[in-house]
Amino acid sequence: MQDYPLVLVRNLYKEHSDASLKDGTKVLVEGWVRSNRDSGHIGFVSLNDGTCFKCLQLVYDETIASYEVARHLSTGEAIRATGVLKLTPEAAQPFELRIEEIESIGKVEGDYPLQKKFHSLEFLRELPYLRPRTNTFSALYRLRSELAYAIHSFFHERGFVYVHTPEITTNDAEGAGQTFKVATSGKDAFKEFYGREVTLTVSGQLHVEPFALAYRNVYTFGPTFRAEKSNTPRHASEFWMIEPEMAFCDLKGDMKIIESLIKYCIAYVFEHCPEEMEFFSTRIDKGLKEKLEKVLQSEFKVLTYTQAIDLLKEAVKSGVKFDEPHIEWGMDLASEHERYITEKVVGGPTFLIDYPKEIKAFYMKENPDGKTVAACDLLVPGEGEIVGGSQREDDYEVLAKKMEAQGNKEGLEWYLNLRKWGGCPHSGFGLGFDRFLGYISGVTNIRDTEPYPRTYGSIKY
Amino acid sequence: MQDYPLVLVRNLYKEHSDASLKDGTKVLVEGWVRSNRDSGHIGFVSLNDGTCFKCLQLVYDETIASYEVARHLSTGEAIRATGVLKLTPEAAQPFELRIEEIESIGKVEGDYPLQKKFHSLEFLRELPYLRPRTNTFSALYRLRSELAYAIHSFFHERGFVYVHTPEITTNDAEGAGQTFKVATSGKDAFKEFYGREVTLTVSGQLHVEPFALAYRNVYTFGPTFRAEKSNTPRHASEFWMIEPEMAFCDLKGDMKIIESLIKYCIAYVFEHCPEEMEFFSTRIDKGLKEKLEKVLQSEFKVLTYTQAIDLLKEAVKSGVKFDEPHIEWGMDLASEHERYITEKVVGGPTFLIDYPKEIKAFYMKENPDGKTVAACDLLVPGEGEIVGGSQREDDYEVLAKKMEAQGNKEGLEWYLNLRKWGGCPHSGFGLGFDRFLGYISGVTNIRDTEPYPRTYGSIKY
Repeated sequence: MQDYPLVLVRNLYKEHSDASLKDGTKVLVEGWVRSNRDSGHIGFVSLNDGTCFKCLQLVYDETIASYEVARHLSTGEAIRATGVLKLTPEAAQPFELRIEEIESIGKVEGDYPLQKKFHSLEFLRELPYLRPRTNTFSALYRLRSELAYAIHSFFHERGFVYVHTPEITTNDAEGAGQTFKVATSGKDAFKEFYGREVTLTVSGQLHVEPFALAYRNVYTFGPTFRAEKSNTPRHASEFWMIEPEMAFCDLKGDMKIIESLIKYCIAYVFEHCPEEMEFFSTRIDKGLKEKLEKVLQSEFKVLTYTQAIDLLKEAVKSGVKFDEPHIEWGMDLASEHERYITEKVVGGPTFLIDYPKEIKAFYMKENPDGKTVAACDLLVPGEGEIVGGSQREDDYEVLAKKMEAQGNKEGLEWYLNLRKWGGCPHSGFGLGFDRFLGYISGVTNIRDTEPYPRTYGSIKY
Repeated sequence: MQDYPLVLVRNLYKEHSDASLKDGTKVLVEGWVRSNRDSGHIGFVSLNDGTCFKCLQLVYDETIASYEVARHLSTGEAIRATGVLKLTPEAAQPFELRIEEIESIGKVEGDYPLQKKFHSLEFLRELPYLRPRTNTFSALYRLRSELAYAIHSFFHERGFVYVHTPEITTNDAEGAGQTFKVATSGKDAFKEFYGREVTLTVSGQLHVEPFALAYRNVYTFGPTFRAEKSNTPRHASEFWMIEPEMAFCDLKGDMKIIESLIKYCIAYVFEHCPEEMEFFSTRIDKGLKEKLEKVLQSEFKVLTYTQAIDLLKEAVKSGVKFDEPHIEWGMDLASEHERYITEKVVGGPTFLIDYPKEIKAFYMKENPDGKTVAACDLLVPGEGEIVGGSQREDDYEVLAKKMEAQGNKEGLEWYLNLRKWGGCPHSGFGLGFDRFLGYISGVTNIRDTEPYPRTYGSIKY
């Protein structure tokens, strides 16, 4: 094979877009065949080298020595090829590679499950290790990677310290979810390794708070777990969470950062994943781009929980049908109620704040009214709740009383201590990464947004 | 309190270094008292606001209304203060804040364990939630955060796709470490949730390989687990790993990327954490800076395992004393042997390659000699091994035979399938993040480099 320089397809498109790609350049490419059609004397391979969403068209004809190799290439085959770049401004592709030599690196045996035809998301869910080779998942997991980077960039630019909170833990944070236990094989399997029972974390929040009281602004971004036996498109037993915590920050400051983060991420993926976003908004969710652009342009509204309850009562009176039509102050809002508020009433992203303390976690700051806490849930059209945050209770006595009442003070003395040794107002929130990716991509099932989903009753590899 | 704009200490130092900090600027600061000395009419508070390693000196005198507040401030107290910035080029600090008003936000009760005196690392290990407030750990966990960002930046700049491989898994990768089991509370605790036994991952490699065969270059960076009952400064049962995987890449290419990554990270922390690195090389490890700078300037050497064995044999002959003096081809090298090679023989970072296949994992590519595999371990002076990598076996038949012999083919058919559907040469490596941080900082105990270490017999919170 000729000794031409290796190029990545991503770089070819980049060079083309800044007009530095030269007609006649001799290059080597490596990648996988997406399709191959041979019309007798001439043939076309659509090559994806993994470095970008788009493919490169390879053109070969019967004059090349490896013509027989070329015409028998099949979908999925790994190849290497050399040739000459040809600018083709008049064609569908802006450039193509005229092949001089082509070589098969890895054949595809006949039982390959991904043939060149449409495969449903459900079918591909059975093949998590192969689906990144398809258009949809290739776009989705690159977007996932870019979205993760956007999140790190956002916080890094603002001086937030990234903290790796532990996965194995002795506390279950808000006590909200069922937890997984961690065990060994010994006789006393649940206790023998650490000398006590331990579980997989449901949230890094309690562990990250002490770091906010040292660094001011911190965040954790890692896996969390719920042993919840829910079989819905939104529930997985393992998922990644972003949990920032800011000292000297109240609920208002919290909401400011949430709004900035959401907008930053949307702007980031529009800028860095234009092909992927185009694909999602034409193939997966027609209204996607407008939905996200509207979020970018909107100022997030703030309503109190109490206002929301009143609005929902009015809605019921005026004939709106909910599955749960009995609206009363103190209830947990269902997704249908949240979506009604953000979609029908506000028509844009909406913070609901000041929830009844009985339906929120023990660590949230009690408001002066004695009935509500300084919590905020961000609701967005098309999804419902995507962020939950709050100012934290920083009054030692108030918190101690609550923890005693809930019976979770034992083992969390350290958490309480933070309130008597240089405490200050602080706030934070949690953003479920996999659901957020679903919101950004329009791919709504967490079994798709996670590379290897773990859900109740189902685990692969 | 006067309505002056809030400033972060980090930004003050930044403005000072680019000479844009103006004498006479009125500002508000928030943070924690590191020390307070009052000499009767005038007093000095060293304020750390968490945004940078350095403190800001606050100067107050008896003329201010809050003088009584100021003189009674104690170490650890959360405060807010307004004042006027004064450039002090002749003093130890380049600038200070002349206080107009000072307010206590969070008092420190008398039982606060961190008094203004020296605390040993061992003492602080008992207080993982407070130690980020000390100089050493403040520097260490900011460095940790920056190092994590360096790693993401390195791969992002090079177009690598970040993949979240799962924590809960049905396979134990190389079968090297003891695994933790994941259970629920039900009757059939080990099986009832997923319908089968599952464990916590020991490595993301097997799960990330399929993504390399779709995206060319990928990496995973997340928690991994070993239920190993080792009580050493280098072993934790939970730790973060970086595992890249590159398609169309052989062992040589693998080593190139390892070398670039290590150098990139060192250069990055020198650039982004100059105060922290200065602190570590003056207070923790005197030779640290020279050690790391030498790595930056060196070209990593490559020796085969066989050459290393010969060198070790010669060393023994010439009188070098090892705890394990019996050197023979086929043995696993101990840390003392690795360090002898990298420190005494080479005097710099050294790749050992082509290990006997019997002592390496099943997925490593067999060399033509039939006895060794295309593996590489990177050894560095002062530490020993920090990276382990290999080219992967891409020959279906060879790999299938090995897996059958090892009895791990069942359940890993998908992994094997990658070799028959568009496979290609690919390589990758694993870098233990917590150990790497120890190497970069000179803080050698993993109980310190991890925010909340989980080790055999020990777990806090």
